[in-house]
Amino acid sequence: MLNQSLTINGAATNTDSIFSFNPCLAPRITPPPPPPTTPSFFFSMNQSTKQNPLLSSSSSLKHTTPVFASQASRVTHETSPSKDDEPVHGLSEVIVGVLGGGQLGRMLCQAASQMAIKVMVLDPLENCPASALSYHHMVGSFDDSATVREFAKRCDVLTVEIEHVDVATMEMLEQQGVDCQPKASTIRIIQDKYLQKVHFSRHAIPLPEFMQIGDLEGAKRAGELFGYPLMIKSKRLAYDGRGNAVAHNEEELSLAVAALGGFDRGLYVEKWAPFVKELAVIVARGRDNSILCYPVVETIHKENICHIVRAPANVSWDIRKHATDVAYKAVSSLEGAGVFAVELFLTGDGQILLNEVAPRPHNSGHHTIESCYTSQFEQHLRAVVGLPLGEPSMKTPAAVMYNILGEDEGEPGFILAHQLIRRALSIPGATVHWYDKPEMRKQRKMGHVTIVGPSMGDVEERLKSILKEEGSDCKAAVTPRVGIIMGSDSDLPVMKDAARILNMFGENSFSSPDP
Amino acid sequence: MLNQSLTINGAATNTDSIFSFNPCLAPRITPPPPPPTTPSFFFSMNQSTKQNPLLSSSSSLKHTTPVFASQASRVTHETSPSKDDEPVHGLSEVIVGVLGGGQLGRMLCQAASQMAIKVMVLDPLENCPASALSYHHMVGSFDDSATVREFAKRCDVLTVEIEHVDVATMEMLEQQGVDCQPKASTIRIIQDKYLQKVHFSRHAIPLPEFMQIGDLEGAKRAGELFGYPLMIKSKRLAYDGRGNAVAHNEEELSLAVAALGGFDRGLYVEKWAPFVKELAVIVARGRDNSILCYPVVETIHKENICHIVRAPANVSWDIRKHATDVAYKAVSSLEGAGVFAVELFLTGDGQILLNEVAPRPHNSGHHTIESCYTSQFEQHLRAVVGLPLGEPSMKTPAAVMYNILGEDEGEPGFILAHQLIRRALSIPGATVHWYDKPEMRKQRKMGHVTIVGPSMGDVEERLKSILKEEGSDCKAAVTPRVGIIMGSDSDLPVMKDAARILNMFGENSFSSPDP
Repeated sequence: MLNQSLTINGAATNTDSIFSFNPCLAPRITPPPPPPTTPSFFFSMNQSTKQNPLLSSSSSLKHTTPVFASQASRVTHETSPSKDDEPVHGLSEVIVGVLGGGQLGRMLCQAASQMAIKVMVLDPLENCPASALSYHHMVGSFDDSATVREFAKRCDVLTVEIEHVDVATMEMLEQQGVDCQPKASTIRIIQDKYLQKVHFSRHAIPLPEFMQIGDLEGAKRAGELFGYPLMIKSKRLAYDGRGNAVAHNEEELSLAVAALGGFDRGLYVEKWAPFVKELAVIVARGRDNSILCYPVVETIHKENICHIVRAPANVSWDIRKHATDVAYKAVSSLEGAGVFAVELFLTGDGQILLNEVAPRPHNSGHHTIESCYTSQFEQHLRAVVGLPLGEPSMKTPAAVMYNILGEDEGEPGFILAHQLIRRALSIPGATVHWYDKPEMRKQRKMGHVTIVGPSMGDVEERLKSILKEEGSDCKAAVTPRVGIIMGSDSDLPVMKDAARILNMFGENSFSSPDP
Repeated sequence: MLNQSLTINGAATNTDSIFSFNPCLAPRITPPPPPPTTPSFFFSMNQSTKQNPLLSSSSSLKHTTPVFASQASRVTHETSPSKDDEPVHGLSEVIVGVLGGGQLGRMLCQAASQMAIKVMVLDPLENCPASALSYHHMVGSFDDSATVREFAKRCDVLTVEIEHVDVATMEMLEQQGVDCQPKASTIRIIQDKYLQKVHFSRHAIPLPEFMQIGDLEGAKRAGELFGYPLMIKSKRLAYDGRGNAVAHNEEELSLAVAALGGFDRGLYVEKWAPFVKELAVIVARGRDNSILCYPVVETIHKENICHIVRAPANVSWDIRKHATDVAYKAVSSLEGAGVFAVELFLTGDGQILLNEVAPRPHNSGHHTIESCYTSQFEQHLRAVVGLPLGEPSMKTPAAVMYNILGEDEGEPGFILAHQLIRRALSIPGATVHWYDKPEMRKQRKMGHVTIVGPSMGDVEERLKSILKEEGSDCKAAVTPRVGIIMGSDSDLPVMKDAARILNMFGENSFSSPDP
């Protein structure tokens, strides 16, 4: 796999900063030495019933003061689940440690509670969305080595809900036998977008051409090579469009670079992908390396933030198949169990290009909670604790997910969100999720609404009615009660008259089925 | 409504212990005076982010010692939600207090977490199923007046997940302006099975004939009147078949009465209902008195405990309609918001008789979590906090729910349950719920499995395969990929040959659709 030609990216020129297949050119990131500081974190206790078996059995977790570092250091360290000798109570006794406690961690906790799987989260915010629902919340940074090490002692398996974690510590822990799912190597590849591109390119995954840039000269060379508009990206700590800037011509290059914080941030460029749609596929891999793909969805972004997801994507069967194949191949090249989100571009000529991969549940998979036999969150937990993967297909014909983003700061933002929620609550098939974030900010993901129903036309009309878009009328969107199915075209003369009669009742009865 | 004739029950004889429409004969239960003791309870803190606005704002709930009675008594008392002046953050700021913290309370908390609605539970067991998932768990008895009063101070609306609560205190609290949903009057009617029968009979709801018995002579008279087998029931504290005894002849009467604890327990008899199926309907009522009914399901009991639920029930359209009408009427006669479960008998001659009503989410509605647009738990919360009711219809064609009951005590029971769970986890469309009860006991409800799929035949085959029943083969149960739909019988000659060819592929392709 490592020696395939670069025809897909077409970037094998003699410019050395463009990625070529010489592995030496792949950037090496040396893990920083673990800081010698003592960890700064504390535990928030939510679980009152059972005790973490990794903790000293004599310490009661209930009605005690929080465990501080000094106490936590007395904890003995077990590396991986080794409970085969005891009968399992319920589905699994494995304690899952999640780095990060945002809405993804929250929804992981919700899925876990149904299965009574214990989830601990590590997040610096005391009132992070996952805090109240987790088995334990360790308040501390998932980017601090001592804290991550301390956290790992309390878990049987370590996973992530955000990729911007201290991966060097994860690698060290893995060497010590700590069970990380997905593997630290995967997190390392994913958290550096350039490294990610290099990795997938090596594995012959189709993706837009790209090259590293270190100075303005390099950026100009890239512009000459790839043309404009040119996408300039930060390699690291980029999400929801943060870390992306577009230069529409050579003159805009320095401005774009400056907007990203300068070349010292570590930048690279991507050739503009002339996409007609953005697609995404959630791919799950079990500990046994079995892989299952969720249906291909279409994602619609607004100001670089996921805005709407349509499931399934309204594309032809062969595009779905092609997208699924690319997603499968991309995830196959990474190590470890869990769900992965593969974001893709569909170009006008039917090409599928990989945009990026997230090694965790993802916004494009939120609809699965209501629309699929197994939600992405349950799937992630099944995968990391070693249970069989669940069926990923849809149990409803169509779903649309709408992100509730902050439209204003503070109370005015809350009022606007509540107005939208009230409309959603009266729409059949709509489910409202609220993440309980303590502060409202513009463009912040505060919750989401998923609408499931018998057809995409139907759920989209319902969404329009929630968004109060013009021309929307929820009543007009109900699926027709009477339909006409023809065995062959020869039935048309008769059926045409039937359709005419039905139309007299004001029903939209003779429309073609959704593709 | 109070003066309708008794033709439905046919029990209007001259035996005075048989219920007649004289309201004076309806038993009056005098509320016991509230005990003068101080409440004995404490709080378990699960919620780390926001503070209950009813508590003194200066007291931080996080990292403090538990609130004991002495501290709690400082709390000021607000009677009902009055937050109209502040913008609502999310769906609702109403704090829901649930009397009881078993699996129903647990699943209420799960539904609440998605909507970020705060649920407090009052339950005597420190590690009750709802404890870890609740906003607060007050450890104390829901049958103790002082405790219930103290609990009510901390909630905006009081509801139940069990009807065997201190209803006299609820009535008193209601008079003081505390918002109880459903109303205390409903709980009082429901918690005494005889009073319940009297109530529904008065409202002309069809139900088996019944009469109160106070001594062996009365029991014999009932036997003469209703025939044998004769169902003898405790009026109060009866659930899952506990409190029922059958006398097959006059000689067995004293044995049956003794098994129920004697006449002092308060007994009544019911004429044996010659049912062919047991049906159930979950009915939701909003605070605006809007009523929505879930699809009629079939419940299959084993040793008087709910064993399997099939949704929808495989009965004709008119039976479904009739059952729904009876359920609607029964719930209409009760007061307050929430979901109600109406258990019904279907007799051989197509009669629908009411068995009993639960004023809360119910085992017969667990399937709604996966199969309906709005689960019964979300619906109950929407109802009691005053949000619009959600769509109750099914989003999947069929569902079957199987209760995981303890098959043995202790560890051997856990091993058997885990074996079943492992089989369920590998069945497509099956979702496993585990209630995390600390102790395994025979016949105890430990969890449940819901299987949703394209047809009842399909989900039942999958269930058989989980239960390892003979003749089950999950592969044979998959929905055919190829089907034949005929426009008219004239197509049969051609299609028969097509079916024959399909059968050569080993597909069960020419079966009639599920009714």
